[in-house]
Amino acid sequence: MKQQRVLILGGGFAGLECAKGFPEERFSVTLVDRWNHHLFQPLLYQVATGGLAMTDIAQPLRSILSDYKNVTTLMDEVQRIDLDARQVHLKEQVLEYDYLVIALGAKTGYFGHNEWAAHTLGLKSLDDAMKIRKQVLLAFEQAECSNDPQTTARLLTMVIVGGGPTGVEMAGSLAELAQQVLKEDFRRIDPCQAKIHLIEAGPKLLATFPGGLPDYASKHLEYLGVTVHLNTSVKEVGAGYVITGDQRIETDTVIWAAGVEASGITRTLAGIPLDRAGRIQVQPDLSLPGHPEVFAAGDLVALTDAKGVRVPGVSPAAIQMGRFIARTILNEGMSVPRSSFTYLDKGTMATIGRSAAVVSFAGMHLRGMLAWLMWLFVHLLFLMGMRNRAIVFLHWVWSYITWQRGARIIQP
Amino acid sequence: MKQQRVLILGGGFAGLECAKGFPEERFSVTLVDRWNHHLFQPLLYQVATGGLAMTDIAQPLRSILSDYKNVTTLMDEVQRIDLDARQVHLKEQVLEYDYLVIALGAKTGYFGHNEWAAHTLGLKSLDDAMKIRKQVLLAFEQAECSNDPQTTARLLTMVIVGGGPTGVEMAGSLAELAQQVLKEDFRRIDPCQAKIHLIEAGPKLLATFPGGLPDYASKHLEYLGVTVHLNTSVKEVGAGYVITGDQRIETDTVIWAAGVEASGITRTLAGIPLDRAGRIQVQPDLSLPGHPEVFAAGDLVALTDAKGVRVPGVSPAAIQMGRFIARTILNEGMSVPRSSFTYLDKGTMATIGRSAAVVSFAGMHLRGMLAWLMWLFVHLLFLMGMRNRAIVFLHWVWSYITWQRGARIIQP
Repeated sequence: MKQQRVLILGGGFAGLECAKGFPEERFSVTLVDRWNHHLFQPLLYQVATGGLAMTDIAQPLRSILSDYKNVTTLMDEVQRIDLDARQVHLKEQVLEYDYLVIALGAKTGYFGHNEWAAHTLGLKSLDDAMKIRKQVLLAFEQAECSNDPQTTARLLTMVIVGGGPTGVEMAGSLAELAQQVLKEDFRRIDPCQAKIHLIEAGPKLLATFPGGLPDYASKHLEYLGVTVHLNTSVKEVGAGYVITGDQRIETDTVIWAAGVEASGITRTLAGIPLDRAGRIQVQPDLSLPGHPEVFAAGDLVALTDAKGVRVPGVSPAAIQMGRFIARTILNEGMSVPRSSFTYLDKGTMATIGRSAAVVSFAGMHLRGMLAWLMWLFVHLLFLMGMRNRAIVFLHWVWSYITWQRGARIIQP
Repeated sequence: MKQQRVLILGGGFAGLECAKGFPEERFSVTLVDRWNHHLFQPLLYQVATGGLAMTDIAQPLRSILSDYKNVTTLMDEVQRIDLDARQVHLKEQVLEYDYLVIALGAKTGYFGHNEWAAHTLGLKSLDDAMKIRKQVLLAFEQAECSNDPQTTARLLTMVIVGGGPTGVEMAGSLAELAQQVLKEDFRRIDPCQAKIHLIEAGPKLLATFPGGLPDYASKHLEYLGVTVHLNTSVKEVGAGYVITGDQRIETDTVIWAAGVEASGITRTLAGIPLDRAGRIQVQPDLSLPGHPEVFAAGDLVALTDAKGVRVPGVSPAAIQMGRFIARTILNEGMSVPRSSFTYLDKGTMATIGRSAAVVSFAGMHLRGMLAWLMWLFVHLLFLMGMRNRAIVFLHWVWSYITWQRGARIIQP
């Protein structure tokens, strides 16, 4: 029997789960990613703030797929998808497929203000996280070297734009870095004088969280020393400043956690409907309109599922989509009609700082220590690889006891 | 009483040990380094070959010195030392001193062939290690993508120049990477086909090791699949090739472990005698001729000590020098004559691969498993920070059990 060729673009949660779903005899699978690793994005902010090493939250794709002998992993970059010819043009080669799965993920989005990208730091990739770490740690180092109070003040002011989970987690982690981790280590400056601003356009933080959780998040961040600005839009970002409605903030460090848009490749797909953020408006079975052999999965998909739920861009949704697509392709020969994807909401959580998190899960709203322990447990569970779990756990226990962080290294 | 100002340049073993040696009341110490971290160089090759994360062997200088309240740490770069004016010009500021300690270390040396630097990778800094890791892992990734057998062969050929401890450790670690760690992970290439060449100009590897240890090292490396070339000089290194006496090797990956020379700053010191590698020929008390208030320590020093022993460029020597200088400065007011530095040789060791090392210690020559366990123990002991020790130990145990490596990530 001729093997069917499945080509998967992207080694995130969606692509990886999909790649694992095919029996060896019938399918030859190729997974393409522009990096050699799968990245656990939910812990990216801890790499950015010196808590974890970059290798702790990344796993080589080909080592994850080592036992799947029908899966070939290629580190290469997608240049163009030719839906009609059923070909994908990579930098190094052209690949043909019987089934294609587009799971290239999302990138930082600026709502049309792409010129702000030059003055801000996103948080979607390892590269982003390493840049933030370098920028933040260098700011403190430069402040210690500076003799000009105005420069020092600018260096020690950091702005985070966007009050979703990423923004909240970054703000809490940066505040604890300045207030606790660094406090004994400088002689000329007082790191506790650092100002952390969190700017949110809407009326509350963590807008998708229910009940009193958003309010708790605001209060706890303020307690950690973060200045929370609600109902505040960014008007302009330039070299050394941010302008909001009523304020100009002098800063060299602007972290942009306000929006994402789909990978640029979606805009090159002729005739495929997209939403404003470039996400593919897929069919109920996650295939592309007019192309039943092409699927999309993960956070470059815009879908309201069979139950009327808008599927969020989170890793459980990506995992579910990846598995769903593999099952759909497996069933193709069996003359069962394709089913429609439904998202199973497993709850949502965000950490705010040491011993504080918010969790919304099965109708319960949790906050504080218990929520924080749940957050730790779930994140360890979803992290790939026992070694990474053991090392991240060790980092966390160590940090909890000593108030220190293990990765405060400015990379060359 | 007026505080004496001690200025220490360099946060390696020498600088750090020196900085810790001054009582708070009498001395104000400033430590300058161009990075924010102390680096444990002996484990650098494990970062380069994907065994450890860069943060596992680096510690922030200011966190190591956190409890030494009279020590100010500055991340800045030395531009010029003005011995007569007793000033050091940094990029950001000019510092004055009563005592100066120059401990800026060594860099990769090319014996006058600086044009080879562009085609080779050194192994002296974190940056070097990350570049080697990227180059080596990318070579395997590109070979998997390539359709041209000649390109594949070139990508899978790696050359290490220099048969000292660094070269031997790199060669063993690279061979095990190709033969063991990667062997199940590729579909189009066989990583075991990778060729690792170790080139040594002299008649044996590990020339400073006694008895049968050099021979054991050669044999064990050959057993691991390394091609050892003795009595072989490099004639030329260019883009994509190395030429030795009788052979042209096509390769993109040349790791240069053949020599070091002192930090470039020594050549700017007017009237101070240097050896050919730019090392400072210090007085018996480690001070500079004509400048009793200026000392040098670590591997930028050329010294035959009071017992006639040529002091090697290793970390125990650097630690001993740093402590000696601090004691000398402390004793200055007490009208005791300065003593001469004597090096206490604590033995020497190198690892060759899993379960194999050579150790020369107190007249004993050890090899194999026992030597390897001693190597592990001593390196954990000298690594700074309990957390780093715990994490490195965990990495090692994990690697030993699984034959895997925890940091096979191509950094962005």
